[in-house]
Amino acid sequence: MTIKEIASVLKENNNFEILTHNYPDGDCLGCGCALALALRKLGKNANVVTTDKPKNFDFITSIVEDMDFEPEFIVSVDVADEKLLGKNEDSYRGRIDLCIDHHGSNVVTAPQKYVDPTAAAAGEIIFELIKELGVTIDRNIANCLYTAVSTDTGCFRYVNTTSKTLRIAADLLDIGCDSDFINKIMFETKTKRRIELERDVLENMIFCADDKCAIIYTTLKMVEGMGDDETEGIASIPRQIEGVRLGITIREKPNGIYKISARSNGDVDACAFCKRFGGGGHVGAAGCTLEGTLEGVIESLRAAAEELL
Amino acid sequence: MTIKEIASVLKENNNFEILTHNYPDGDCLGCGCALALALRKLGKNANVVTTDKPKNFDFITSIVEDMDFEPEFIVSVDVADEKLLGKNEDSYRGRIDLCIDHHGSNVVTAPQKYVDPTAAAAGEIIFELIKELGVTIDRNIANCLYTAVSTDTGCFRYVNTTSKTLRIAADLLDIGCDSDFINKIMFETKTKRRIELERDVLENMIFCADDKCAIIYTTLKMVEGMGDDETEGIASIPRQIEGVRLGITIREKPNGIYKISARSNGDVDACAFCKRFGGGGHVGAAGCTLEGTLEGVIESLRAAAEELL
Repeated sequence: MTIKEIASVLKENNNFEILTHNYPDGDCLGCGCALALALRKLGKNANVVTTDKPKNFDFITSIVEDMDFEPEFIVSVDVADEKLLGKNEDSYRGRIDLCIDHHGSNVVTAPQKYVDPTAAAAGEIIFELIKELGVTIDRNIANCLYTAVSTDTGCFRYVNTTSKTLRIAADLLDIGCDSDFINKIMFETKTKRRIELERDVLENMIFCADDKCAIIYTTLKMVEGMGDDETEGIASIPRQIEGVRLGITIREKPNGIYKISARSNGDVDACAFCKRFGGGGHVGAAGCTLEGTLEGVIESLRAAAEELL
Repeated sequence: MTIKEIASVLKENNNFEILTHNYPDGDCLGCGCALALALRKLGKNANVVTTDKPKNFDFITSIVEDMDFEPEFIVSVDVADEKLLGKNEDSYRGRIDLCIDHHGSNVVTAPQKYVDPTAAAAGEIIFELIKELGVTIDRNIANCLYTAVSTDTGCFRYVNTTSKTLRIAADLLDIGCDSDFINKIMFETKTKRRIELERDVLENMIFCADDKCAIIYTTLKMVEGMGDDETEGIASIPRQIEGVRLGITIREKPNGIYKISARSNGDVDACAFCKRFGGGGHVGAAGCTLEGTLEGVIESLRAAAEELL
């Protein structure tokens, strides 16, 4: 399908539900809200369906208050797999009419699909689609789309950022989106608990293999009551340290289970490292699961790292 | 002067020295190197003059090896004041032929000046200038300019970022600049000492005024032997915490002197706060100096914060 064809399909229908994935992020919420607002501007009914609405996205979700209508056409945005619909999976599996996504791994079953893995964010696709629909992107829609493209690229810092991403962001700034406000909320605000977690993690950081490996860990107690959004990104801390070629993060789970993430800048094979423990992944990012005590797990990882590096 | 006029002046001359400011950053080094490379492409001699060459900028400074010639025309880039030439001030004060800058506060004395305070980075001006010179921006020049615009905007996150900044960055990506590599070096690498400093700072963080104020401090011992680039940005930590309206950073200096930085998101007057201690600044960022013991300084600031908030 082309963007033009999707636009035609949307124009022919009237009552939309737009599905987002569980643990909703800036890209799926931004896309859902932007598309709903655009469809409403065309005189259609449209709601965004979420598993929950994280408080920090209030500034976009609050502009798209639920409307009362009988849904007829189901669109999913940024959902790579029906499983990721979370608590909405049972209600919507097999009912998706149109799937719009940027994950190359997309396995959603839908009669109409548009998947562009070259898009840094699904927001890039929705930006083009809204223009194709002939809807003028106003400030509200621009805020939704800026949230989508900026969050999925770490504010244009990640390797997925392209010149297209930057030009779309430029257009959104010209429309008057509140990029300063959004950047502050998304990239410059941490909860007190998060700051405390970072402190605790740094306090307990272990260097080994001549400082070429850094190991951090979180215990169940350290993350008690914290949401996934608050613990996200912790695993990137050890790899950021100058000279560290392998960064390892240990996350305690219930019943003596430890989830391990290994990250490298590509010159050390994190996947080979995790395979020693029955795990796998990519050269730059891999994972495995270990059982036992925290001390034992640290020792196993340390020994393997010393051997590898 | 217009960009066209600057280009003409440069075309008429042949042997250039390009001055950068002390504690050189990505913008001045990126501009200096980009302009030197462009002038060399026109068959001219050009060197970049720096107070020092920080190791993390080797990837751009190493492409502009010093040439041997008698300098005839002196250009300063990103230098707001002759004082900022540091150890080069005495040799160059009064000798600058052309000053190119983006600081509205520029006070450099030069017969020819181009100052555009709407440019997020001096790199934006140099980008336009090189195009005006008729030089094709190659990958080396693109790397210099991407370093300039990305570092001065915190990778397009700071409030100075405009749609023009983003479009220039997009053009540089299209040329094939190594944005991934540059982003990794500039925004995702921290020294071990820096990580340790962050840990120590977080360990000793003090919350007061119902968590609306957070105070951090660095002692001389904590930053011993660290460069300015390693301690940069520490003052932004407390203000980033959700709910914190006034973030205060105390930096111990020799002889019982303490430099205070106060930061707010604009809803609390950091300047008014610092004025209580004889300091000043802006609503969002201000400073003052206190004398005494660390404990005494913390108590004075805490008491003032409790009163203000």
